[in-house]
Amino acid sequence: MRMVDLIEKKRDGKELSTEEINFIVQGYTDGEIPDYQVSAFAMATFFKDMTDRERADLTMAMVNSGETIDLSAIEGVKVDKHSTGGVGDTTTLVLAPLVAALDIPVAKMSGRGLGHTGGTVDKLEAVEGFHVEITKDEFIKLVNENKIAVIGQSGNLTPADKKLYALRDVTATVNSIPLIASSIMSKKIAAGADAIVLDVKTGAGAFMKTPEAAKELAHAMVSIGNNVGRKTMAVISDMSQPLGLAIGNSLEIQEAIDTLKGEGPKDLEELCYALGSQMVYLAGKADSLEDAKAKLQEVIQNGKALEKFKQFLASQGGDASVIDHPERLPQAQYRIELPAKQDGVVAELVADEIGTAAMLLGAGRATKESEIDLAVGLMLNKKVGDAVKAGDSLVTIHANRENVEDVMEKLYDSIRIADHADAPTLVYGTVTE
Amino acid sequence: MRMVDLIEKKRDGKELSTEEINFIVQGYTDGEIPDYQVSAFAMATFFKDMTDRERADLTMAMVNSGETIDLSAIEGVKVDKHSTGGVGDTTTLVLAPLVAALDIPVAKMSGRGLGHTGGTVDKLEAVEGFHVEITKDEFIKLVNENKIAVIGQSGNLTPADKKLYALRDVTATVNSIPLIASSIMSKKIAAGADAIVLDVKTGAGAFMKTPEAAKELAHAMVSIGNNVGRKTMAVISDMSQPLGLAIGNSLEIQEAIDTLKGEGPKDLEELCYALGSQMVYLAGKADSLEDAKAKLQEVIQNGKALEKFKQFLASQGGDASVIDHPERLPQAQYRIELPAKQDGVVAELVADEIGTAAMLLGAGRATKESEIDLAVGLMLNKKVGDAVKAGDSLVTIHANRENVEDVMEKLYDSIRIADHADAPTLVYGTVTE
Repeated sequence: MRMVDLIEKKRDGKELSTEEINFIVQGYTDGEIPDYQVSAFAMATFFKDMTDRERADLTMAMVNSGETIDLSAIEGVKVDKHSTGGVGDTTTLVLAPLVAALDIPVAKMSGRGLGHTGGTVDKLEAVEGFHVEITKDEFIKLVNENKIAVIGQSGNLTPADKKLYALRDVTATVNSIPLIASSIMSKKIAAGADAIVLDVKTGAGAFMKTPEAAKELAHAMVSIGNNVGRKTMAVISDMSQPLGLAIGNSLEIQEAIDTLKGEGPKDLEELCYALGSQMVYLAGKADSLEDAKAKLQEVIQNGKALEKFKQFLASQGGDASVIDHPERLPQAQYRIELPAKQDGVVAELVADEIGTAAMLLGAGRATKESEIDLAVGLMLNKKVGDAVKAGDSLVTIHANRENVEDVMEKLYDSIRIADHADAPTLVYGTVTE
Repeated sequence: MRMVDLIEKKRDGKELSTEEINFIVQGYTDGEIPDYQVSAFAMATFFKDMTDRERADLTMAMVNSGETIDLSAIEGVKVDKHSTGGVGDTTTLVLAPLVAALDIPVAKMSGRGLGHTGGTVDKLEAVEGFHVEITKDEFIKLVNENKIAVIGQSGNLTPADKKLYALRDVTATVNSIPLIASSIMSKKIAAGADAIVLDVKTGAGAFMKTPEAAKELAHAMVSIGNNVGRKTMAVISDMSQPLGLAIGNSLEIQEAIDTLKGEGPKDLEELCYALGSQMVYLAGKADSLEDAKAKLQEVIQNGKALEKFKQFLASQGGDASVIDHPERLPQAQYRIELPAKQDGVVAELVADEIGTAAMLLGAGRATKESEIDLAVGLMLNKKVGDAVKAGDSLVTIHANRENVEDVMEKLYDSIRIADHADAPTLVYGTVTE
């Protein structure tokens, strides 16, 4: 088999066999097939796509390129959730204790990563003492006992995906449905998920700009999951504006606590129910999505979900008293209001621009070496569709520096006030096959 | 400027600016842009094509990536001819002395190369003593005095093209009109041509399998030439069967002599007139292609063309007596006939397969290190459309080994005899803009 022939085959729109896809992925991982052939192949794939069968094969070839996590010692169906990324997305912090409160095992491997705010691990570290440096045995023991634990990323998972992603990033081949879908799915599968719930974002702050594009990606991932024996569902949700009100590490922990109490922002709550229902249903703990939602509402109302969060924080060394005393979370030195310059209705809160404003404060990492300031961030006081009067605070800036003119300028640039505007649709639909 | 953005621009079907194309070609030549980005760019170009302006810019960027040959010391319009490659193509050997006999300067830089037979330099070296290792000053002096000389390839011409071609070869991006056209044209322009005549082959033995595809390539090259100030024309000619009758180095020299005497195979003669007429016309030595053809016929009839060949061979150390005594050219030890197995009409002589048979005898190089046997080759006794009787010789095999069963088998496989067949069209048309 020669790589040049396989590039030509894909270039001409033909379907590659399982053996051919394995040849490419193994050869690339081993360094036998050079970058310049794989980038040409990726570009041919961009133009000619892959069949559902090819996508599933590519996913499993990437899973098999490295180590995989064996979660078989954990009882029950391990359901993982993945979001395609957005700004102020507190869903993971809410969903993990929420579904664990229904005896569904949440065995989460999480990273730090670059972005507007920290990753889930960074956010959790806003709770004093909390740490994810636990052994795999401790991890499994904790999940079996408490139904919830988080461990830092380790092991050489999906090296083919890492290598391919880095190559796609510099060869204008990122934006290809079969390549995006197989990349995401391979990581979830290698991390040991039995079932997967996907939150595919759409809008200005998301990779997929339209609901149609998001649906196409969601369908691709759901199809891969089901084709390789992992039950998979997806929700298409809005990321034209940030989700919820908090953008920042401590601030999002506090928002998660509020939401687990039933006092969170409506949009965050709605999305947590949508995603959580799918998780509960796929875990086999409910007969329908409606039934699953009722169960989730119950554990919020009866306090079990919040209790689970407390137990989870304490079990990994965290100061669980923050749940009753959120003021013990890291607090920024300054709180500065951003006043509206005119009367009207908020018509736009450009999600990624607002995320960048939070990063300017130090809430996220611009490079791997950046230090995160867990205390800083933004609290939105208005969301799209809300009426404002000149002088009303649009955003409260939580800063550890007195002069935040750069942040204010960035925020004013990303907020548009008009005569009329409606709140955007939050959930555009669910994809189950 | 970032290469990834330029790949994306081409991927999305947008036109690149001159500056952007220069950035890519210079960066690639200098090693600052890696192979993996250029191969993705080449694949995007395969799918999205280039405008005439981009093609001209790409060509000149490759010309400017290395040295160029300055032929300004040679008087007159230097017209170069290029063929896209075929089997038994003796046109260069005929055309060089033929147009030089009309006082048109033929300043040819030629190589050896791989293939079914040798390159032009190999063929000429079948004439004892002939050599192309002359200095540039001698070369220019010879062209000014005799209107004809051949020099071996030297200098670092179009390094960007060399690097890009090698990359395309292993990334399934060879077959792209803008990339093929700019590659060919950049080499001709760097070699100093003022005007260019192209012989674009079509058929089983050619890169372009259909006349339509060949015309598209021809149009692309003619457009590039004219856009960068080199008058360019093209002929679309058949390469479903070998051109002429001879395939082999000595054999083709003899065939050239015959043709210059007016006694060559009809198809070779016809194509030499078609290409030669364009060369004479572009050199400004005739008012029309018809007028040009008449002038060519005249120098064949009056012996001046043959005389020019004789002078040319002698001026570069060759034994010019071969022209009157072709038996002094290297002769193979064995002549073996290939008898027809049945009555009928020759319906197919698959050009590249027959070329491979000649290479099996040693007429061409399979690898750079191969030694060529100048004496061996094939003489076709029948061409497509000719009637044969069982036992008639289809081909005379000129071999330096007694057992040529492999060659005979290859030939039988590539010759089809049927009840009816017509001779193929030789010239499918000319492209002048």
